[in-house]
Amino acid sequence: MKNTIGTSITMTLFGESHGPAIGVVIDGLPAGAPVNLEHMQARLDMRRASGTISTARHEADVPQILSGVKDGHAEGTPVAILIPNENVRRQDYDRTKDLARPSHADYTAQAKYRGWQDASGGGHFSGRLTAPLTAAGSIFLDLLEAKNIHVATHIADLAGIQDDPFDETHLKKQMNVLKKADFPVLNAKQGDAMKAAIEEARMQQDSVGGILESVVTGLEAGVGEPEFDSIESLLAHAVFSIPAVKGIEFGSGFALAHEKGSQANDAFYVKNGQVRTRTNHSGGINGGIANGMPIVFRTVIKPTASIAQPQETINYRTNQKAVIRISGRHDPAIIHRAAIVVDAMTAFTVTDLLRQRHGETWFTEACR
Amino acid sequence: MKNTIGTSITMTLFGESHGPAIGVVIDGLPAGAPVNLEHMQARLDMRRASGTISTARHEADVPQILSGVKDGHAEGTPVAILIPNENVRRQDYDRTKDLARPSHADYTAQAKYRGWQDASGGGHFSGRLTAPLTAAGSIFLDLLEAKNIHVATHIADLAGIQDDPFDETHLKKQMNVLKKADFPVLNAKQGDAMKAAIEEARMQQDSVGGILESVVTGLEAGVGEPEFDSIESLLAHAVFSIPAVKGIEFGSGFALAHEKGSQANDAFYVKNGQVRTRTNHSGGINGGIANGMPIVFRTVIKPTASIAQPQETINYRTNQKAVIRISGRHDPAIIHRAAIVVDAMTAFTVTDLLRQRHGETWFTEACR
Amino acid sequence: MKNTIGTSITMTLFGESHGPAIGVVIDGLPAGAPVNLEHMQARLDMRRASGTISTARHEADVPQILSGVKDGHAEGTPVAILIPNENVRRQDYDRTKDLARPSHADYTAQAKYRGWQDASGGGHFSGRLTAPLTAAGSIFLDLLEAKNIHVATHIADLAGIQDDPFDETHLKKQMNVLKKADFPVLNAKQGDAMKAAIEEARMQQDSVGGILESVVTGLEAGVGEPEFDSIESLLAHAVFSIPAVKGIEFGSGFALAHEKGSQANDAFYVKNGQVRTRTNHSGGINGGIANGMPIVFRTVIKPTASIAQPQETINYRTNQKAVIRISGRHDPAIIHRAAIVVDAMTAFTVTDLLRQRHGETWFTEACR
Amino acid sequence: MKNTIGTSITMTLFGESHGPAIGVVIDGLPAGAPVNLEHMQARLDMRRASGTISTARHEADVPQILSGVKDGHAEGTPVAILIPNENVRRQDYDRTKDLARPSHADYTAQAKYRGWQDASGGGHFSGRLTAPLTAAGSIFLDLLEAKNIHVATHIADLAGIQDDPFDETHLKKQMNVLKKADFPVLNAKQGDAMKAAIEEARMQQDSVGGILESVVTGLEAGVGEPEFDSIESLLAHAVFSIPAVKGIEFGSGFALAHEKGSQANDAFYVKNGQVRTRTNHSGGINGGIANGMPIVFRTVIKPTASIAQPQETINYRTNQKAVIRISGRHDPAIIHRAAIVVDAMTAFTVTDLLRQRHGETWFTEACR
Repeated sequence: MKNTIGTSITMTLFGESHGPAIGVVIDGLPAGAPVNLEHMQARLDMRRASGTISTARHEADVPQILSGVKDGHAEGTPVAILIPNENVRRQDYDRTKDLARPSHADYTAQAKYRGWQDASGGGHFSGRLTAPLTAAGSIFLDLLEAKNIHVATHIADLAGIQDDPFDETHLKKQMNVLKKADFPVLNAKQGDAMKAAIEEARMQQDSVGGILESVVTGLEAGVGEPEFDSIESLLAHAVFSIPAVKGIEFGSGFALAHEKGSQANDAFYVKNGQVRTRTNHSGGINGGIANGMPIVFRTVIKPTASIAQPQETINYRTNQKAVIRISGRHDPAIIHRAAIVVDAMTAFTVTDLLRQRHGETWFTEACR
Repeated sequence: MKNTIGTSITMTLFGESHGPAIGVVIDGLPAGAPVNLEHMQARLDMRRASGTISTARHEADVPQILSGVKDGHAEGTPVAILIPNENVRRQDYDRTKDLARPSHADYTAQAKYRGWQDASGGGHFSGRLTAPLTAAGSIFLDLLEAKNIHVATHIADLAGIQDDPFDETHLKKQMNVLKKADFPVLNAKQGDAMKAAIEEARMQQDSVGGILESVVTGLEAGVGEPEFDSIESLLAHAVFSIPAVKGIEFGSGFALAHEKGSQANDAFYVKNGQVRTRTNHSGGINGGIANGMPIVFRTVIKPTASIAQPQETINYRTNQKAVIRISGRHDPAIIHRAAIVVDAMTAFTVTDLLRQRHGETWFTEACR
Repeated sequence: MKNTIGTSITMTLFGESHGPAIGVVIDGLPAGAPVNLEHMQARLDMRRASGTISTARHEADVPQILSGVKDGHAEGTPVAILIPNENVRRQDYDRTKDLARPSHADYTAQAKYRGWQDASGGGHFSGRLTAPLTAAGSIFLDLLEAKNIHVATHIADLAGIQDDPFDETHLKKQMNVLKKADFPVLNAKQGDAMKAAIEEARMQQDSVGGILESVVTGLEAGVGEPEFDSIESLLAHAVFSIPAVKGIEFGSGFALAHEKGSQANDAFYVKNGQVRTRTNHSGGINGGIANGMPIVFRTVIKPTASIAQPQETINYRTNQKAVIRISGRHDPAIIHRAAIVVDAMTAFTVTDLLRQRHGETWFTEACR
Repeated sequence: MKNTIGTSITMTLFGESHGPAIGVVIDGLPAGAPVNLEHMQARLDMRRASGTISTARHEADVPQILSGVKDGHAEGTPVAILIPNENVRRQDYDRTKDLARPSHADYTAQAKYRGWQDASGGGHFSGRLTAPLTAAGSIFLDLLEAKNIHVATHIADLAGIQDDPFDETHLKKQMNVLKKADFPVLNAKQGDAMKAAIEEARMQQDSVGGILESVVTGLEAGVGEPEFDSIESLLAHAVFSIPAVKGIEFGSGFALAHEKGSQANDAFYVKNGQVRTRTNHSGGINGGIANGMPIVFRTVIKPTASIAQPQETINYRTNQKAVIRISGRHDPAIIHRAAIVVDAMTAFTVTDLLRQRHGETWFTEACR
């Protein structure tokens, strides 16, 4: 549904890059859910990032809770979160007005809205819209942690530089590392190499992309739905709504194309009374439903479309050819900022599935 | 929504592998849409496949239209399609009763439904449920063709054997080849090699997977929604509801992780009054919305989980360890059968988006 | 959503009066829910009614369960129910072909579907479509009874003849009377008078309507949603989908227009530890949410539109004026048949709300 | 869906009576739709009312558009409207803290949210939440007027005092009267009597209710859906989400209980090439679909629950009995304020149905 997502819990997103504010309305959040503004701010800060590797647009991104929260807990009614746009500089965009930035939404927005859209700074298509998603996601992440379900994402690969992989035997420790990291990698040295690659792209007026790897631990077997609401379907739906995501794979993903069934199948066994699988090629999901193993998936983030190099394009109002030189504030990479957004959309999806399974009372009773 | 998918047009799926019938209800199909039973049967036959490379379960899969169709056209009210299960042999499954087939839904169904599920032959999780989706998809494929929108899928890679790639300059011809192909490849020689690989897997009591590549041509720029209903979100949602799909990528997909923005961006230009892009790394989608270029995506199909080799597992009712030897009728590969199902889910998604954009009257008026 | 209704549990309806079959797909029914075919048949028989006061179209209306049920319990996956159309006599309608029956859907179906609709016998708009709703509703009624929630409906008023009112102190007894009644009234003598009025209308080639009163007992306080999913909103939505319903009122309903707040307010008190209200002008609903008192509402059923008297009308294809003489099989009253359908839609709505509140596990665990 | 309503166009509502702001997000509003802030303010002023007959809580209710509007037209992306709460006096409610106001949502909110709700001033259940609905509705009313579809509501009956009825032959003139009326009646003299009755109730520390009659003209035949999305179902769903509504009837409504089919049926005829009906007992709707005649329905508004007289009740946290004396700012009647809210919800519903039928492009093209 366009700008509303979810079944038993929904998020409704609004705002433009250069309007007065952007925001989100969460509906169906169970009464009693903790709403921790410090955690929310910390996660927004992770998304905002900083330093030379990120956008020169610096905004505090301080969320305002307009409704649905009292004394640090959800009331059960809609939670509206507003983030004012502080640092709006429309003039930056005047020079490129009406020019379609390649691989950006300028032309498609024109085709869809036929001239009525707010094109400035990407308008409603701006990556800035992921800020309210992160604010909302923070609530879901906290709510899941209260149920001992944890979500984490790291950069598995940036421009060919690879982080250490998730390793089930050390997963708890690895997830703790990511919670405190200011750059979402497990191996700090590799992180430094990635930052250098980003800086190099910036110097070249270019940009880089990469691959995020995400994990959900603690999700009970049996959560999910058959057919159209498989966990894969729902997570993919949610994650593809993050700008720049162009692919997703679960478990061994595309590598399964070159494996035999005898290699790809995950044998079941019981350990300490818990059903487990020897391997996790399935990414914790069989038949669309959680099997109790960690949910694992990887997401590809394309290189940022807005680069400073001159590019061939058209004026989308006149269809005349043109050369565009984008001079606004843009990131040479957004993958490190996207990690927490993937966490947010993942936590939302999992919470929605849990509410469908156990109802609102299951959460509310656990909040006393 | 579990077993219903869509916004302005919906499909509701029902049935179990070994029940009396499986089926689908289509709602919101515009009045006047052609319903061609020959095309439907032909597409069901493509899904059913045949010969030694496919399941020994041979059923006619003749669809019965229970409602919503008159004189070869949709009435505008729900179209219910039933496919009887003819060749039910529950005894095949007795020996493996209560054993969780690795990487299959037996255990997760038990966890979700707590013993009430129909486990026989995969029950509701059986790949057989893709037959009604194919029948429904046939209607959407025909309806789109009437609007000059075409959908096609081929096996890009099976166990390392690669088909010719889609090539925009010969796309029309390539799509015609696929329409008549009994095995969905562009290069018949490569197709023969793939068949041999499938046969080899069968001899080894094993199975193989692969990668499907799909294309949609003729979709006007401006179709799609921002944010949560991006074309990527909706197609991924729909395609991941096909069993065995574990990944999807649009345009250059995961390869974008290793490209610079200057390489990955698709420059706009105008040719014969049509806005086009020089390259199509974006897979025809910018900001979630069609840009008028072909929509291109790739889907990974895991190797069939049901293999005849003995496998370690558990009895899902007792949690005792066990060895399973699956002796039912199973395919060493399903990727060639999945191609038409991906077409079906794609055509459904595109039709739903077009109805949201132009309404039901746009279709109905075109059917006179 | 057109032919699908519900949030956590949905019903999808299909079929035409003169097609091969009509049916419904229930999705989201919790695993373990009892599916009692005897109860289902008994409730279908109540809807079918019999004798001279009802339609001359006699069909067994024996439901076939195509999926989702095993050994008398829901599997948790979709339940498809089919009811074959046995007694189809299209020729009855030939004489009135293309003539718009006054106050029936012939003309509006033509306006909507522009000639593609199945007009015979009302097509998809036929009251016959309430048969699958009744079959589905039977499952919800049984499921609620297992939770000690009861639903009942009687004819409060037929052509001015009034039944005894529901009386909270004898409600349990009254509801038992209705369970066994072959004509849904509390006072058999008044029921006889109503039957006589129906017979009189039939003799006059005319028809009568009336008012149904419904009650739900045992629903816990706190069920329901604020704003758009108030219990009133959801019940009204569900009940207005029954053909011939033209009004609904909750509690004192339209009589509240002439009361003061001091008269209309329901004072709270506590009795045996239970919160109750002294009166029930609110019909058990405050702010859209159940307050623990019986839910009470009244529904008006218009007189059957199909009458044998000649009536002024038009040919809906040519817009020429015409006189219509309807000679098919039609009821002089349908209100006694509609009672169980209102029960069905009510039980559906309440079950959906309970599943949203407590999840699927709450029901499944109670079914052991 | 709780706080989101609609199919192709949705409204998502948030806010509490005593929080910082209330608001609404509109999604799916076609690009180009006019957004006239003067009209919006005028309609908000009608809802706010004034003088002794209305609440002593005076707020400017000036809407702020946060997104989705540029130069007086919708951009096609979500429109977020915020209305700050200015005149918050929580202390007014301290004396009645934890006491359940009879026939209000205090107790049911406690039962649902288990103590986490914001109870002050009714919280999310406050009638104040109808302000954002009115602001949103203003956009839909303007959009429909551009298509020559008009919506109007008057007080048909207040405490037994009756306004002139809608009369089809003078409907255009009557609707114009209502547009300019500061009290929504056709007969000013009757309006004065109604105001006197309200004032009398206020003097008695009591309240009154009444009946609203609404009409929609210009809606083309064929709009609406069969079965679950009949116009009656959708309008009832929308209108029952307005606090204090306890009943709705279409056309002749409850009076149909005492009419014969021969009296109740609306004969079709053709006048100036237009299909019409001689009478309009059906309220413009046959089979759930518009027949081209005016849509007519009546809504009962219960007397305001908050009255100053002492009332028996309980403390909802302790279940102890209590006497409540409500001293906050409350209206002796809200029916005159509710009229524009019914218009708003009606216009929303009709616009949603039209967008489903004709798509977003139908509206956008008409806005040039």
